[in-house]
Amino acid sequence: MRISELVARTGVPLATVKYYLREGLLMPGEATSATQARYDERHVRRLALIRALAAQGLPLPRIREIVRLLDGTDESLFVALGRAIAALPPYPPDDDAPEPRDCPRARRVLERLGQLYDPRFAAVAQLERALAALESAGLAMSDERIDVYGRHVLGIAELDLDLLPTRSRDATVEAAVLGTALYEPVLTAMRRLAHQHLAARRFTEFFPPGSLDSPVADSQEQQ
Amino acid sequence: MRISELVARTGVPLATVKYYLREGLLMPGEATSATQARYDERHVRRLALIRALAAQGLPLPRIREIVRLLDGTDESLFVALGRAIAALPPYPPDDDAPEPRDCPRARRVLERLGQLYDPRFAAVAQLERALAALESAGLAMSDERIDVYGRHVLGIAELDLDLLPTRSRDATVEAAVLGTALYEPVLTAMRRLAHQHLAARRFTEFFPPGSLDSPVADSQEQQ
Repeated sequence: MRISELVARTGVPLATVKYYLREGLLMPGEATSATQARYDERHVRRLALIRALAAQGLPLPRIREIVRLLDGTDESLFVALGRAIAALPPYPPDDDAPEPRDCPRARRVLERLGQLYDPRFAAVAQLERALAALESAGLAMSDERIDVYGRHVLGIAELDLDLLPTRSRDATVEAAVLGTALYEPVLTAMRRLAHQHLAARRFTEFFPPGSLDSPVADSQEQQ
Repeated sequence: MRISELVARTGVPLATVKYYLREGLLMPGEATSATQARYDERHVRRLALIRALAAQGLPLPRIREIVRLLDGTDESLFVALGRAIAALPPYPPDDDAPEPRDCPRARRVLERLGQLYDPRFAAVAQLERALAALESAGLAMSDERIDVYGRHVLGIAELDLDLLPTRSRDATVEAAVLGTALYEPVLTAMRRLAHQHLAARRFTEFFPPGSLDSPVADSQEQQ
């Protein structure tokens, strides 16, 4: 398809498409003349990926990093997947100490759950930082919480993998990166909403009449 | 306790404690002379809260917003809780369209799950944005995924509420804010690690011998 059709298909403005081409985020089309090129489904998918990551607030250099990994052919799927996912937020705060090296808190959790892991995977250091922050706030994660969270998270991850396309290395990495980036805010929003739902039911003594406003009452009546 | 003891107890440097006092993040101590004041456990807890939120990368104005809500007495617990949690990340991208008003995608999910919700709660708009991003990437959330995620997230949220202190309004709000801010990165890191664990087991055809490096093999042998 021509670039004008690519714009129409994806809804990404022409100037933005050209910008992504210049920046190397979008792979070049197949040249059909000195001034024209042909684009295909790969370009449509790539634009969707870039827009989805940008909409999550990812800075352009991080998107470039992910795209470069998707385009790389010299690495195993495992390594490419790990690196691409490490390029997603949350990022360590700028003024933070260097990455925790042996991650004792994260290791304890993973060993308790009996999970395989690569200690160099960025999520290990991410878990370590989060557990250390909890400890310093006087809220160390209890074994009970590790077990319950572990069980439910594994259930979610099982489904994620069940639904992951495996027809090609590219499709798998692309879906894994998108699924990680786009389902994390879904999960955190769902957890906050589940808290609200349960709190409204349980802590009625904390919610004097009138503190639950009508929309909640409305939705209760509708059930 | 004196300010020097507060520093020793919390590990927060004196200059930082004074800065938080000036900025109104830390409530003033009880004056014992023109130049001295006495501090108590509330100050220790408040410093832990500020440090924990800062370590998660929260900007100071957001921390101030949360602290102000904790100190406010004119609002119901429900409203204070909702506002404090809305001050936590993720934040909508700066250049984003205004908040989605009626949030049809989020409503569909919440109605399917039969959950009570307040449509003005920030997590509704957050869920709507995340679902819209998925749709625009061609990955709309299926009913199967809504049901499985919903069930597991509710299980996690049940435990969160079971473990929430309810001895006072302040303790509840403080623990809810901290628990939301600090357990979200734990959950997202655990999900990424669960993916790695399951992928290493399932997709052996994608991981040629040698692509799983020795630390993973080590941890497998240890089991």
